[in-house]
Amino acid sequence: MEGGVGGEGDHLAGERATAQFDVEHMKVAWAGSRHAVDVADRMARLVASDPVFRKDNRTMLPRKELFKDTLRKAAHAWKRIVELRLTEEEANLLRLYVDQPGYVDLHWGMFVPAIKGQGTEEQQKKWLPLAYRFQIIGCYAQTELGHGSNVQGLETTATFDPKTDEFVIHSPTLTSSKWWPGGLGKASTHAVVYARLITEGKDYGIHGFIVQLRSLEDHSPLPGVTLGDIGGKFGSGAYNSMDNGVLRFDHVRIPRDQMLMRLSQVTKEGKYVHSDVPKQLLYGTMVFVRQTIVADASKALSRATCIAVRYSAIRKQFGPQTGGPETQVLNYKTQQSRLFPLLASAYAFRFVGEWLKWLYTDVTHKLEAKDFSTLQEAHACTAGLKAVTTSVTADGIEECRKLCGGHGYLNSSGLPELFAVYVPACTYEGDNVVLLLQVARFLMKTVSQLASGKQPVGTTAYMGNIQYLMQCKCGVNTAEDWLNPAAIREVFEARALRMAVNCAQNINKAPSQEEGFYELSPDLLEVAVAHIQLIIVTKFIEKLEQDIPGEGVKEQLRILCNVYALYLVHKHLGDFLSTGSITPRQGALANEQLGKLYAQVRPNAVALVDAFNYTDHYLGSVLGRYDGNVYPALYEEAWKDPLNDTDVPDGYQEHLRPLLKQQLKLSRL
Amino acid sequence: MEGGVGGEGDHLAGERATAQFDVEHMKVAWAGSRHAVDVADRMARLVASDPVFRKDNRTMLPRKELFKDTLRKAAHAWKRIVELRLTEEEANLLRLYVDQPGYVDLHWGMFVPAIKGQGTEEQQKKWLPLAYRFQIIGCYAQTELGHGSNVQGLETTATFDPKTDEFVIHSPTLTSSKWWPGGLGKASTHAVVYARLITEGKDYGIHGFIVQLRSLEDHSPLPGVTLGDIGGKFGSGAYNSMDNGVLRFDHVRIPRDQMLMRLSQVTKEGKYVHSDVPKQLLYGTMVFVRQTIVADASKALSRATCIAVRYSAIRKQFGPQTGGPETQVLNYKTQQSRLFPLLASAYAFRFVGEWLKWLYTDVTHKLEAKDFSTLQEAHACTAGLKAVTTSVTADGIEECRKLCGGHGYLNSSGLPELFAVYVPACTYEGDNVVLLLQVARFLMKTVSQLASGKQPVGTTAYMGNIQYLMQCKCGVNTAEDWLNPAAIREVFEARALRMAVNCAQNINKAPSQEEGFYELSPDLLEVAVAHIQLIIVTKFIEKLEQDIPGEGVKEQLRILCNVYALYLVHKHLGDFLSTGSITPRQGALANEQLGKLYAQVRPNAVALVDAFNYTDHYLGSVLGRYDGNVYPALYEEAWKDPLNDTDVPDGYQEHLRPLLKQQLKLSRL
Repeated sequence: MEGGVGGEGDHLAGERATAQFDVEHMKVAWAGSRHAVDVADRMARLVASDPVFRKDNRTMLPRKELFKDTLRKAAHAWKRIVELRLTEEEANLLRLYVDQPGYVDLHWGMFVPAIKGQGTEEQQKKWLPLAYRFQIIGCYAQTELGHGSNVQGLETTATFDPKTDEFVIHSPTLTSSKWWPGGLGKASTHAVVYARLITEGKDYGIHGFIVQLRSLEDHSPLPGVTLGDIGGKFGSGAYNSMDNGVLRFDHVRIPRDQMLMRLSQVTKEGKYVHSDVPKQLLYGTMVFVRQTIVADASKALSRATCIAVRYSAIRKQFGPQTGGPETQVLNYKTQQSRLFPLLASAYAFRFVGEWLKWLYTDVTHKLEAKDFSTLQEAHACTAGLKAVTTSVTADGIEECRKLCGGHGYLNSSGLPELFAVYVPACTYEGDNVVLLLQVARFLMKTVSQLASGKQPVGTTAYMGNIQYLMQCKCGVNTAEDWLNPAAIREVFEARALRMAVNCAQNINKAPSQEEGFYELSPDLLEVAVAHIQLIIVTKFIEKLEQDIPGEGVKEQLRILCNVYALYLVHKHLGDFLSTGSITPRQGALANEQLGKLYAQVRPNAVALVDAFNYTDHYLGSVLGRYDGNVYPALYEEAWKDPLNDTDVPDGYQEHLRPLLKQQLKLSRL
Repeated sequence: MEGGVGGEGDHLAGERATAQFDVEHMKVAWAGSRHAVDVADRMARLVASDPVFRKDNRTMLPRKELFKDTLRKAAHAWKRIVELRLTEEEANLLRLYVDQPGYVDLHWGMFVPAIKGQGTEEQQKKWLPLAYRFQIIGCYAQTELGHGSNVQGLETTATFDPKTDEFVIHSPTLTSSKWWPGGLGKASTHAVVYARLITEGKDYGIHGFIVQLRSLEDHSPLPGVTLGDIGGKFGSGAYNSMDNGVLRFDHVRIPRDQMLMRLSQVTKEGKYVHSDVPKQLLYGTMVFVRQTIVADASKALSRATCIAVRYSAIRKQFGPQTGGPETQVLNYKTQQSRLFPLLASAYAFRFVGEWLKWLYTDVTHKLEAKDFSTLQEAHACTAGLKAVTTSVTADGIEECRKLCGGHGYLNSSGLPELFAVYVPACTYEGDNVVLLLQVARFLMKTVSQLASGKQPVGTTAYMGNIQYLMQCKCGVNTAEDWLNPAAIREVFEARALRMAVNCAQNINKAPSQEEGFYELSPDLLEVAVAHIQLIIVTKFIEKLEQDIPGEGVKEQLRILCNVYALYLVHKHLGDFLSTGSITPRQGALANEQLGKLYAQVRPNAVALVDAFNYTDHYLGSVLGRYDGNVYPALYEEAWKDPLNDTDVPDGYQEHLRPLLKQQLKLSRL
């Protein structure tokens, strides 16, 4: 973290001087509190200053070395966490800034929570201390070679054998091989394995089991267990540091008490019984995991925009037709119109993520009180936000890469790896299309219940206002009118509701609801997106209704909020026009206002990405350097490539010299 | 090429049986002629059957080995070309199917054409035979560390010294380092270097010079020449097989006659003189290079859709709510609505590319006759098609990857490498945004000249119909009406022209044309895209007016043409509505028709990608295998990863065992 000091050696000092707000206060607004800024700052510096955590050579490491490097970093991080007696908050941040996918992510993020959420108290007492001390390493083995999103389609079996009081875990087919779980291939000693529970000849569907996979003595796979890595993945470095694994069972036996039995159990006699714990609790876990993914989206998108904004202020190209020096590319309207909406989106996702964290707490309290009234709405809202924020972020990182021109294609820009490591977020923890269809299904149900007078709750409450929203007319008359948050909110509500109602009507025309839903599913995706965008816009607007200290801070956020909303109006103009939510002229005024907002963002752009407070280590980008001294750094990086070890490349003698010396048979040319 | 035979072992035989057209004839329609199918087939098989050309392990090779592998393949390809006395057409196809970026691409694609286009007859006589026989290897050194699209900003100097009759080539600054040229870093012995020509103290701007970089004896860089590779790039494998290079000159001297002097020369005395060759000839080269890029776009997009279509027919997920087996994901409307427009785009780009090849011939003939009347229009059209087809293809490959679910993220799916190797096409040979702005500038000029009665030519001819197109009303009343090509063409014309006129009017309101152009540049991008989409739609429609033999072939192409057009109507609905080119109801009808078209594509989808006639070698994808036997192949591929060399990974003793055995200091947890 190179601090906020400009001056000598700071090629971006001029940009920082034009900021019209207090960057230190914006850091607080971004991070959530002064404390959050400070602790993140401390952990980021701790990682950045430790040579074990260097990652500038990561994309050059062959797979085995990369994996070994991950093992080294994980062990070293743990050592530091213990030595420095870090709090859980600090430890999580330290791992975040180490910024290299590895088995610890699954151990802490999936294995431990699965035992906490699905294990009995007794099971927790037995297994959690082992996991907490890393005496075992665990992962989460759900997906199979032939089965992804559809958990009910899993084939692995866990057949109860009352003779020995054991479950027999088995992979009956090739497609039932566990496939993808992170940490499974090489690091984990244990896994929570999901399998079809079979007892007394009956299939009771998918349940979780704690299964030991490797010897705790020498780490070799246990008998009956076939384990391996599933091979290289997108990008250099990136997710290749992770040992996503394949796992097959040949009749592997585990004690009965290794079934996770909080929700249901099998008795010694083989009877399947439900406990009195409501299974809605599992939804709470999903809400939790997905809200962390939304938080990660704002992190990834803000990193990408930070790199692209800084480099766009450094990079110059073309000049005024009248001659003179070249222009910073950040001054081009085409650059602004692609980059600033992404910058605004990063902020929007940050604030909706913050709200989602609150929502999770709220849901948890309600679940504890056995109040399930808002669970479905919270689940749909979280699923939809996961889908929309990850899709936008994945595309946004790639857009930022393109916005850096050719140099964005170099690994040293950091953007190729950021993209490659990020994109799985669109697929894992619920494929985005599958999730959006769930949202749509919930919205269709909500619409159909409006007639019966059932009041929609939470983020769907606006649908209760159907009488008004179906016929209201947008009152915008001038470009400035588009700065009114009430007007923005209303057109987003009208668009979302009208699209939903329209789709519901079309579904009703089909021979059956299911057929209608199937035929109209592409439209339903758009309905879900419109609803989720409304939520993000609304939460941004609500954020601005809060007290936000610091000179000019709230004003900048207001500008970004308007950029976000009006960019969406422009991008989805077809939706807004075809639902009659706005007129073509109002659409043109929105676009006009958007251009003015870009001009207002321009002098603040660099300071707005400084407010993310990322170290150069965390950014991992020569183009995004805090000091903007890009070109010498790019030049220097190049020489580190192994291909530059020698002037004359390996292979010259065998494959180039014979060609140049005409020692290949040349009968004709 | 596994032939068209279905039957035993063909998991896609059922899909192939439902095709409603003659696949062999479709192959001809796709390739352009029976001859084109046959020669491509022969070359593809030649490459696929030669173990030197294997590429299944490419993404696992460390950089140096990958580069050496490229040298090996290039030398072997040359050997085969010579031994088998291949024609130029055959040799080009062989290189295409080798499918690994390397120095030969630049040697043949840029170095030789530069000498042909910009060298005098004498220069051609001297240098071309050396290049043709590979006695020298050449590349094209234009871009610099600090200078990309703006060629006029290059800093390298070539100062004439009349005392020695030499040019002194020099890199005055760090940012003037040549940066990016393919083949430059390690393989090339020579380069065409672009530098500011300075003679008699005056800067005459950018000119090309043939400069020797390496010794022909031992390949070491010549004195004053600093050469290296610029480092790792996006992805594993992919463009890392290419030695994109950095090059600095420290007062390197070359004879005067190594300036490329077809268009202008420097005399012995240092006088700068123009020849009588019109410089418009250079535009011809740009049109040529860019039309090959459009052809490549259809190739890359068709590969991606081939993989995604085949795997979507194999992959199953979820089932009817009534129970029963899982459904092929290709049956889902959400899958179809994302995949089929890309399939249609691949065909659309193929046919517009074919037309562009004709356009290049036409331009060449006209240039030879010193007729420059259509040059600007041809240049704009080619630039715009380059921009639109490469952008859609890059995004489309990534979309296909997502459409393959989690497995698309594995290198063995082929899609990560296809994406990583393709995306630079959006940046090289003209950044897409820069190119679209050139198109827009041309369109604004065309619009402004309409008033003066100047008739627009070629692809802008429709603008001459301004009276009608500004006020016409779309006559579509039913979903079926959208199948009428005349109706489609008219709405695309109306949309493009109205957007252009609207923008031109807004520019006129600005204080100056330049300011207006600058402020409205984001809108101008959209104007350019609308115009280019019209061209693609029109050329597809015109293709269908030709004779296309084979049962059902034309009917399938008609369906794809309609998918392409109506998908665009839906995607850009805001444009069509805000210009009043269609009504909201007509937009809804287009969407309804689109759903019906998807259903028509469905039974033909696999056969439509079979018609691309790609070998499994060329596709390089476990998911896209011709026989559809995906899962055993995926499983097998996994074990090839170096990480699977041992059961217990490298690093266990140092970094995992101490953790598991609690040998780290554990003071607290």
